[in-house]
Amino acid sequence: MSDYTAYFRAAQQASRRLATVAPAAIDAALRDLADVLLAHTDFVLAENAKDLARLPASDPRYDRLRLTPERLASMAQDLRNVASLPSLLGAVLSEKELANGLQLKKVRVPLGVVGIIYEARPNVTFDSLALCLKTGNACLLKGGSDAAASNAALIEVAGPVLLRHGLPLGAATLLPPERAATEALLLAVGLVDVVIPRGSQGLINYVRQNARVPVIETGAGVVHTYFDETGDLAKGTAIVANAKTRRVSVCNSLDCLLINTSRLADLPALAAPLAQAQVQLFADAAAYAALAGQYPAALLAEASEAHFGTEFLDYKLAIKTVADLDAALDHIAAHGSRHSEAIISEDAGHIDTFLQVVDAAAVYANASTAFTDGAQFGLGAEIGISTQKLHARGPMGLEELTSYKWLVRGTGQVRAG
Amino acid sequence: MSDYTAYFRAAQQASRRLATVAPAAIDAALRDLADVLLAHTDFVLAENAKDLARLPASDPRYDRLRLTPERLASMAQDLRNVASLPSLLGAVLSEKELANGLQLKKVRVPLGVVGIIYEARPNVTFDSLALCLKTGNACLLKGGSDAAASNAALIEVAGPVLLRHGLPLGAATLLPPERAATEALLLAVGLVDVVIPRGSQGLINYVRQNARVPVIETGAGVVHTYFDETGDLAKGTAIVANAKTRRVSVCNSLDCLLINTSRLADLPALAAPLAQAQVQLFADAAAYAALAGQYPAALLAEASEAHFGTEFLDYKLAIKTVADLDAALDHIAAHGSRHSEAIISEDAGHIDTFLQVVDAAAVYANASTAFTDGAQFGLGAEIGISTQKLHARGPMGLEELTSYKWLVRGTGQVRAG
Repeated sequence: MSDYTAYFRAAQQASRRLATVAPAAIDAALRDLADVLLAHTDFVLAENAKDLARLPASDPRYDRLRLTPERLASMAQDLRNVASLPSLLGAVLSEKELANGLQLKKVRVPLGVVGIIYEARPNVTFDSLALCLKTGNACLLKGGSDAAASNAALIEVAGPVLLRHGLPLGAATLLPPERAATEALLLAVGLVDVVIPRGSQGLINYVRQNARVPVIETGAGVVHTYFDETGDLAKGTAIVANAKTRRVSVCNSLDCLLINTSRLADLPALAAPLAQAQVQLFADAAAYAALAGQYPAALLAEASEAHFGTEFLDYKLAIKTVADLDAALDHIAAHGSRHSEAIISEDAGHIDTFLQVVDAAAVYANASTAFTDGAQFGLGAEIGISTQKLHARGPMGLEELTSYKWLVRGTGQVRAG
Repeated sequence: MSDYTAYFRAAQQASRRLATVAPAAIDAALRDLADVLLAHTDFVLAENAKDLARLPASDPRYDRLRLTPERLASMAQDLRNVASLPSLLGAVLSEKELANGLQLKKVRVPLGVVGIIYEARPNVTFDSLALCLKTGNACLLKGGSDAAASNAALIEVAGPVLLRHGLPLGAATLLPPERAATEALLLAVGLVDVVIPRGSQGLINYVRQNARVPVIETGAGVVHTYFDETGDLAKGTAIVANAKTRRVSVCNSLDCLLINTSRLADLPALAAPLAQAQVQLFADAAAYAALAGQYPAALLAEASEAHFGTEFLDYKLAIKTVADLDAALDHIAAHGSRHSEAIISEDAGHIDTFLQVVDAAAVYANASTAFTDGAQFGLGAEIGISTQKLHARGPMGLEELTSYKWLVRGTGQVRAG
């Protein structure tokens, strides 16, 4: 029994209360919270300034941590967006009457108590709160210590709004910003139904290593795009540039271009936009030979084995030459992280094989992997991108924050035998 | 890298192969296996005899371990039943065209590599193999050491059948019967997609404590039935007797009867069939007073706090008196294991509240909890009963052994912004 058990029990109590709250009350609370947040702009920014004061402006965390009137407006808009989505709760997923007259219904219910562990960005606090409440879950929010004052201010703003709409305070609890709270959360078997880490690979590894409660892993994307024998050069050039350079810091960005040997002569053209964006290439021997003299020498290096299977999150790209589709599939199976993978090909048979065989959350033909995102997939909202196959795979929206239960109505039935 | 990694890698390779095998080939292999099993009856029984020779016939594991011609016939029939179920693979779960022309399909796929850890019963070997193969999964089977010779014989029988139908041997691997293999399986991050323990609470706790791979927890059922103010005595008497005594060793059997104070006078009648079955009662003070002189004294004791929240798996039952529905709900929230819970009531409002508020895989009104079972729920087959809320809840059938992936077909689309 840890010092944090009182928080977890309060969340579990709150989750029982939430099970009986009308979805309309939750939506009203989220809309109200958007207004109240904007009305407290000065307070929230002043608290945020305390967090910022602990970091030099040159620190890469500074910008992620910083709140502005524009960012608060965007957070308020996100709250309204979630409120406007249809509620999933109580939906009947299947229904049948058994031969003995029992009436079976499988209905959608909240997961219960959801723990979210995240790092610097304070906007994740309200984003997680909104998605959890919308799905009837109580949330235990464990933000980073860098954002401690900002997160505390946001939850202070939210508390009276929850109460005003008949929701329990325990529905959204901010845990103390120390590591011991994370440890306790990961061990809270029987009190916490799932923990979702949102952050770096280091955080995810830590959670996997220490959790005794169920976890949904999010994160790491080692992403490939295979340019096939019949790949269209114009499509391929645009797709590779977009997947690599649109936003290098996100998990769906391209890490390794696989190129069919027969298309090495097209590699300089395929890579041309990458040079403009100052992308550093790590090319295997054949690709290096094809690029030498055609790509800026300062940005071209020979690949080592360590470059394959690396998530760069930077203006860096590995290039591997493959003899055929099978070799591309083998490379992806060995080095991918089952996140997003693409083929550029005009061969329908190759496309079908690639889509069928590649084991990843999102498998693309002739499109940029940058589309792996809850909003792009039409999920309405996203709490993360799962890289596991259990429960949720790829972008996780509201549905992935729910479970189900079986309701059985009888008239005295007993089981024979 | 453990000594067992070669097994895990072979399973992962096999799972890639399985992704391209036609469902009809898998069904044919399962039907063939049923015939081949029966043709090898003498061999399998001889190997089973070696396992049995290590146990005294009085050991409770002896009967669970024992194979007979009848039990082999039943295993063969189970294989044919699974083969006859419709295949779920490749089913399109949703489909849409985005505004930019991208074609999105969410399709059902296997989980990949499924580890099953189980104890004495050798029939679980073929049961797990059949359910995993039917859903396109490679399975890593870790049986108990008691059944080592029996399990090895079964897998020896299965191998040539898999090969004859074009399935890789790695699709069904029996791990060595030592504890170290279990440990390695639980740590095989990136090679094993899920582990399902099938067995005692001790096994499940061990798996939860040691696993770094995703787990579906099965098992423990602390089951309540609440006899409400308006409960029908005839229905209640039949339901309580059935839920307690039909099979005391299963997870859906009744552990605690909650009785409304106003119905204490009916408690002797409600409990009468339990006396015939020699059920020992642990009653709180009010219930004890109501039963004293009415129930065999040798079978009646006062309850201690430890009796509430206990899964007895025996001819034992706790009885708790509650003032009203809310008190019953509180008791279940505090002591239940979220498996199966029931109310006996003629009050429609109370029934609705109970079904809505109780957080359990299966919630019953006026029926025996003995129905919590994959076959009873019409799932066709069952690999276990999940007591977690992630991925699968309650009876797990074929669907719960699958995941999904997103297929995205484009014509050169890239993402703006």
